[in-house]
Amino acid sequence: MAYICYMQINIAKKVAAEQAATYIKSGMTLGLGTGSTAYYAIMRIGEMVREGLSVKAVATSEESEELARAQGIPIIPFSEVDRIHIDIDGADEANAALQLIKGGGGALLREKIIAAASDQMIVIADESKVVAQLGKFPLPVEIIPFAYELTLRRLHQLHAAPALRKKGDQYFVTDNGNYIADCHYERIADPETLHAQLNDIPGVVENGLFIGMAHLLIIGKEDGTTREIRR
Amino acid sequence: MAYICYMQINIAKKVAAEQAATYIKSGMTLGLGTGSTAYYAIMRIGEMVREGLSVKAVATSEESEELARAQGIPIIPFSEVDRIHIDIDGADEANAALQLIKGGGGALLREKIIAAASDQMIVIADESKVVAQLGKFPLPVEIIPFAYELTLRRLHQLHAAPALRKKGDQYFVTDNGNYIADCHYERIADPETLHAQLNDIPGVVENGLFIGMAHLLIIGKEDGTTREIRR
Repeated sequence: MAYICYMQINIAKKVAAEQAATYIKSGMTLGLGTGSTAYYAIMRIGEMVREGLSVKAVATSEESEELARAQGIPIIPFSEVDRIHIDIDGADEANAALQLIKGGGGALLREKIIAAASDQMIVIADESKVVAQLGKFPLPVEIIPFAYELTLRRLHQLHAAPALRKKGDQYFVTDNGNYIADCHYERIADPETLHAQLNDIPGVVENGLFIGMAHLLIIGKEDGTTREIRR
Repeated sequence: MAYICYMQINIAKKVAAEQAATYIKSGMTLGLGTGSTAYYAIMRIGEMVREGLSVKAVATSEESEELARAQGIPIIPFSEVDRIHIDIDGADEANAALQLIKGGGGALLREKIIAAASDQMIVIADESKVVAQLGKFPLPVEIIPFAYELTLRRLHQLHAAPALRKKGDQYFVTDNGNYIADCHYERIADPETLHAQLNDIPGVVENGLFIGMAHLLIIGKEDGTTREIRR
């Protein structure tokens, strides 16, 4: 994901990200998300650091880490992480129960590891990401390359209509060396059950459903206002 | 794992493996396990193939695949696998409920993917592997290298006393590019609950508990007899 492509300012994403940044206090360790909305959060945190805010951070991707360093945000190794106070990240879909689909950019596993290790996860999104029912966005499932044909068959049995993600004419490979099966559910009636069923398949490393992880959803609108939904 | 080291014949392992082979019929596709007991199964299946048995097979490790090829057992790619009729594999520990600990050799994920895809899993073991309660054998948990410190902390919270497996002065890396945390429980009171708790940690790929997977346990004894426990 190249951040250089976000040249035109997206007001809705920007105001959501800036509202999230108001929850940050000096002394905190932060988790920095990945994607077009998290970009605005990192930019705003960079401003705050230059204005005197003292924070440390870990990042969910190399892109976000580079951007954060360039903005002057101190990045620490995981061996020095005592706790992560707030993780700020985007979502591909979010519902009113603060259940999410993430992983369109392929970083779902790293995002989930950091979200799970954080005291609080703040999700930032523009209105278009907020849905009544999850599933229209294809659910990314990270799978082991070994015997992936067997794993795809298990996904078929869960009616996932899986398609291995490609990059050019090769299979897309995650930062962790795995494949992504994009699962076309259209409507996910019971995200919690599906999450458990997917992770129960031995070849599945993780899936893009984030259940019970987000604490606060901040929705940005084109008119520059925000709305918050708490768990 | 070098098969060359099994020079002295272990009667208990050999009779268990040979008893398992009696369940094989022509036309079947087999899963071939990894380890010192699975070695005897592959050797016996090789004999049967040379005597006219017609089977195809997939293997849980490169070592087993090489051994099988050398024995004349046809190995097929996973893209050609329609179903796997019988998977024959060993275990590091097994209880009377046919719950297992596997992964001492580091191949737990591949073994689990194939076991889960098989109609029937036959576990072969000598008497020393059969225990009243699982846990004395350290439970292997395969974890993602990214932010492994956070994952180890989650394992600590589950009282796992995890130790990252080493090879020389480096961390041991699995065939899938991950680390192994050996978890020292001593006694696992509720394997099913622990299995779910471990796999619910985002940085955990899989763990060495095999629950509800084995259909038949064949225990070999030093006196050359076997005992079978069915699920």
